[in-house]
Amino acid sequence: MSNDKNRQVILVSRPEQRPQVDNFRLAESPVPEPGPNEVLVRVIYLSIDPAMRGWMAEAANYSDPVPLGTVMRSAGVGRVEASNAPDYARGDYVYGWFGWQDWAAVPASAIVRKVDATIAPLSTALGVLGLNGVTAWYGLLRIAQPKQGEAVLVSTAAGAVGSAVGQIARIQGCRTSGLAGSDEKVRMCQEEFGYDAALNYREETDMGAAIDRLCPRGIDIYFDNVGGATLDAVLPRLRVGGRVVICGTIANDAATPPLGPRVERPLLVARARMQGFVIMDHFDVFPEAVAELAHWLHQGRLRYREDVVDGLARAPEALLRVLQGRNKGKQIVRVAAE
Amino acid sequence: MSNDKNRQVILVSRPEQRPQVDNFRLAESPVPEPGPNEVLVRVIYLSIDPAMRGWMAEAANYSDPVPLGTVMRSAGVGRVEASNAPDYARGDYVYGWFGWQDWAAVPASAIVRKVDATIAPLSTALGVLGLNGVTAWYGLLRIAQPKQGEAVLVSTAAGAVGSAVGQIARIQGCRTSGLAGSDEKVRMCQEEFGYDAALNYREETDMGAAIDRLCPRGIDIYFDNVGGATLDAVLPRLRVGGRVVICGTIANDAATPPLGPRVERPLLVARARMQGFVIMDHFDVFPEAVAELAHWLHQGRLRYREDVVDGLARAPEALLRVLQGRNKGKQIVRVAAE
Repeated sequence: MSNDKNRQVILVSRPEQRPQVDNFRLAESPVPEPGPNEVLVRVIYLSIDPAMRGWMAEAANYSDPVPLGTVMRSAGVGRVEASNAPDYARGDYVYGWFGWQDWAAVPASAIVRKVDATIAPLSTALGVLGLNGVTAWYGLLRIAQPKQGEAVLVSTAAGAVGSAVGQIARIQGCRTSGLAGSDEKVRMCQEEFGYDAALNYREETDMGAAIDRLCPRGIDIYFDNVGGATLDAVLPRLRVGGRVVICGTIANDAATPPLGPRVERPLLVARARMQGFVIMDHFDVFPEAVAELAHWLHQGRLRYREDVVDGLARAPEALLRVLQGRNKGKQIVRVAAE
Repeated sequence: MSNDKNRQVILVSRPEQRPQVDNFRLAESPVPEPGPNEVLVRVIYLSIDPAMRGWMAEAANYSDPVPLGTVMRSAGVGRVEASNAPDYARGDYVYGWFGWQDWAAVPASAIVRKVDATIAPLSTALGVLGLNGVTAWYGLLRIAQPKQGEAVLVSTAAGAVGSAVGQIARIQGCRTSGLAGSDEKVRMCQEEFGYDAALNYREETDMGAAIDRLCPRGIDIYFDNVGGATLDAVLPRLRVGGRVVICGTIANDAATPPLGPRVERPLLVARARMQGFVIMDHFDVFPEAVAELAHWLHQGRLRYREDVVDGLARAPEALLRVLQGRNKGKQIVRVAAE
């Protein structure tokens, strides 16, 4: 094997407020041997996701917390180097839950799917053809169910999920508006991701007025990756029959739910629906979703950006980039050459 | 005609906080003549509903405000006494938007449906076979979509909508729990409406603990007629895939939405859905819903209570009864003998 050590990034403490680099520690151990029905995977790329903030916390969540002293949970892509599982063979590229480490000896159930590396670059299995693209596909098409001509607003509109949401909504014939956190991201929204309108919310003092400029006729669908004050400003602006897809709540502190304007009256007045979802409940849609996303990718109708940080040891730093909104596109850590 | 004057209850001022009897004034005018395509209806029963609080207010709402100086909007049942509309004939019993008055000359479009007075008592067209029963039917079956064995919690559980929700949920094989505002209503929940459990929320200091006693395994469906603190206590107790049906928000002041715990995180964690609806959007379901409700009524599986106040002039007083939770069952005003 190319590397006789397995470096691992271990979660050693839980964040007080925001995650810090020193919540993690780099450790080394021997490359593991796969047990019965296990597969040994050489990790190539890791996916860095906002949900990791929740996985680091103690509070019960839609995923169990990562236990202290263990490898940080992470999706990744890699190559099978040895297999004791009937469905996988040496040389297969796979996408699954491999953690922040060089080598993962995991049960076959940790593999979500095989990746066809001839369709698109391997790294897209983590983003536009992975959890992010499928999250966008499922949340928009299955939960919000957009109709042609509807007004769709997206927060973190240039992000890995948001940019896919905006483009899929456009493919459905919707009018798309995006909220992003920098002028550069606003330009990405308009020039790369085809939004009809976008603005930098950090420059706005009155979020309601800003949304009125973006969506003067109100909002049919709000795909919400942030929660908080933006959501508060959207709710009274929902059109009748509006849908709010709750995909992420990064604007809220995980531990203590803050107060906000009550939602029941705007939901009643607009006959609106607000729904949370977690893509991990819906792995069954992956084949259909990935096929449709890959089709749009090949047609040139679905574009993506990746922001690649080199080296396993920099995974904590890459996570902070994401949580601070400094990444430009899907945040990936390259662990090894393809 | 039996009465040569038309008494009308006019909305003369908007409530500052809570509606008062003196927001209304009784006026008299001649019995109107029906115009082209109009019907003259002798009003027999009026429906008194919590939504009237919203109709009295100035704020934009899912119904336009009742203009000051005009007859208070109200659903009612009556008998057609004269008709210039092809679909209606003298002697027909009809359910529709007749207002707080003895006689209504209304366009045929104000009539929602004819009432078959041989199926059930005429007054049931206002309650269990009317807006309330159909509201319960639609909100529970079409929005929440209960499955056998699920835990269903209902607020204002002994009320006209709530009691139907609890019984329909039971017919679907759900475990039903009710929140009511007096010990007498709790008894009604258990003895008349077949709830598996019920409690008087006014006796509880810790709503969360109270709901834990009622629904120890969490809540699959919350049919919410009140909003406010009860909703706040329910959200963190939703089971995965939970549904909250927003049917009414009487616990909230109509004018200024107060603050409450943010909802996006509990909705995400439980992958839950919260949806508002207004039955006036769904009059197309009335035939199907009324037929099914009447079937259950005849089977003895659906029971109802009516609280009848005699005399048009007492309509404002009857509304205050409802808004203060003093009514025992569907609040009705009897305007004339059948």
